Amino acid sequence: MTVSAYGVPQERAPLEHMKIDRRETRPNDVRIDILYCGVCHTDIHFGHDDWGMTEFPLVPGHEIVGRVTETGSDVTRFKEGDLVGVGCLVDSCGHCGSCKDGDEQYCENGAVQTYNSPDPVSGGMTMGGYSTSVTVVEDFVLKVSEKLDTKAVAPLLCAGITSYSPLRHWNVKKGDKVGVIGLGGLGHMGIKLAAAMGAEVVMITRSADKAEDAKRLGADSVLLSGDEKAMAAAAGSFDFLLNTIPVKHDVNPYLTLLKKDATMTIVGSIDGTDELFGGNLVFGRRSLAGSLIGGIAETQEMLDFCAEHGVVPDVEMIDIGDINDAWKRVQSSEVKYRFVIDMQSLKAQAA
Amino acid sequence: MTVSAYGVPQERAPLEHMKIDRRETRPNDVRIDILYCGVCHTDIHFGHDDWGMTEFPLVPGHEIVGRVTETGSDVTRFKEGDLVGVGCLVDSCGHCGSCKDGDEQYCENGAVQTYNSPDPVSGGMTMGGYSTSVTVVEDFVLKVSEKLDTKAVAPLLCAGITSYSPLRHWNVKKGDKVGVIGLGGLGHMGIKLAAAMGAEVVMITRSADKAEDAKRLGADSVLLSGDEKAMAAAAGSFDFLLNTIPVKHDVNPYLTLLKKDATMTIVGSIDGTDELFGGNLVFGRRSLAGSLIGGIAETQEMLDFCAEHGVVPDVEMIDIGDINDAWKRVQSSEVKYRFVIDMQSLKAQAA
Repeated sequence: MTVSAYGVPQERAPLEHMKIDRRETRPNDVRIDILYCGVCHTDIHFGHDDWGMTEFPLVPGHEIVGRVTETGSDVTRFKEGDLVGVGCLVDSCGHCGSCKDGDEQYCENGAVQTYNSPDPVSGGMTMGGYSTSVTVVEDFVLKVSEKLDTKAVAPLLCAGITSYSPLRHWNVKKGDKVGVIGLGGLGHMGIKLAAAMGAEVVMITRSADKAEDAKRLGADSVLLSGDEKAMAAAAGSFDFLLNTIPVKHDVNPYLTLLKKDATMTIVGSIDGTDELFGGNLVFGRRSLAGSLIGGIAETQEMLDFCAEHGVVPDVEMIDIGDINDAWKRVQSSEVKYRFVIDMQSLKAQAA
Repeated sequence: MTVSAYGVPQERAPLEHMKIDRRETRPNDVRIDILYCGVCHTDIHFGHDDWGMTEFPLVPGHEIVGRVTETGSDVTRFKEGDLVGVGCLVDSCGHCGSCKDGDEQYCENGAVQTYNSPDPVSGGMTMGGYSTSVTVVEDFVLKVSEKLDTKAVAPLLCAGITSYSPLRHWNVKKGDKVGVIGLGGLGHMGIKLAAAMGAEVVMITRSADKAEDAKRLGADSVLLSGDEKAMAAAAGSFDFLLNTIPVKHDVNPYLTLLKKDATMTIVGSIDGTDELFGGNLVFGRRSLAGSLIGGIAETQEMLDFCAEHGVVPDVEMIDIGDINDAWKRVQSSEVKYRFVIDMQSLKAQAA
């Protein structure tokens, strides 16, 4: 029996905890005792059914770090006691073009999300990491280095890979000028990762008061998007822009910052953009793209990269009892830069 | 002395002709007797000062085919009598990153357009191809094969390269599924060129009555953008989309047609798009890009490709006296698919 924190829809009730039956450990499953789980804005969107697709009760959480407690008979890569991670995906079809490319996040038959996703084997819906344990097929379990601060690793599984994957996909390399737009959970990882890749990192923000923190995180400089003169001076100078703004916004001022053939990639918002001026793409053969988390092999690569370069998110640890306040603070951008739930607190409550 | 057809702004007057002084032939110049000049929608935008940047009197025309009549002392690649072409560009800085890449159209110091562009050497403004002759620096003059129908070659210099360049830049290859959106001057070239590259070409249009013509031009099939069922069935199936729609429009329905990692490139409109739904980019790591004509070397490559594959536009020949009616018919999309002015008619008027 696993104890999970869950949400119910009727009155947007605070999260409570309950005992739920998780599936039995199958031959290719890894059972994980959850140590820490990051709090992602997506959890809140699902908790509040913002996208009209939540099936309650919902156990959120897709930034999971824990230790293996049990392995199925066919599992070869993990053993009891291993430190592991689970991100946004727990399964995919494995045979479509995207899966064959290692891009399971774009599985053409629908990847199985870590929570609120139909479980193709067990039936029912998947349940996430606000929980004492989780059982996941071996291929979707990641190895986590003991070298990093384990508490801080969890947000790498979503915020980390969401920033890392586009930086790699669009070939950010040493010396490239990379702009990170927006300083939240994703943006602060974008700065750290691009800096670790050797890029010249420019934090692009509306808020002058974020400058100091951006530099502490690794940004070489700060460009204020409201400063028209500074924006004009920076026109055509960026090799890549990582756009982490989480709400609908006007992308045009940012597009003008791109060099010829350069790309701005949206990772923060699926809500869209205001009207787009085609000339900003045509003059300079620029691209506006989007990117969703990353594939499993790439997530492992990111975890290894972070271990090698000592990159972890800035986190604020909370107990499960703090979760409803934490969600409110995420919504008002009052977290620097990611909450992580210490799951001992849920175990203690449940005891 | 060169005779040119020109426009004046005051009453959006019809084009008249006048004698204007063209520059003397400098050492690296090629002087060209113009045989044919295509009519591009851009000519009309400049003629009507739609973009607020026209300096009158204006001599439009940037789809020029003619024969060399004189060469400067340093010219090595051309001799009198050669069949040549001039497109949208007549000079660029030659030393910026874009020029060094062979992308003179994106010259960071501002390429010199064939008309209505400050001439950095002679002073004054450049004058285009609605004229009996033009003088252009050797590096911006293209060789035209005698194998093609000379009358029909002119529109390759703008409509042709504008379609060819993105097909090449985004690596369209044999067997790729390519959608060409919109059937006008650009779209009909997109179909012919993509088909000549061996792609499976789908014409995407609102108008069922364009189906027959699209197939005659080389499209394998037609997808009606208003047919929701057909659009849904085609979702995620295209390797590349060439968007030639000349006005502001909603790009979202087209983006959903793209495969993972595929791109839709805007070539027809700098006016922009309606609100863009970011999810259409994020889910599938798709890109929306823009592209402007092509570089000089690439334009030569395109002309050679067309000679090899026997590709020329469908043109309707007109006399210079028909130009004002022709402009009206371009505006109401009543040309299949490009007007070409027989410049003998201007010479006859001027005689």
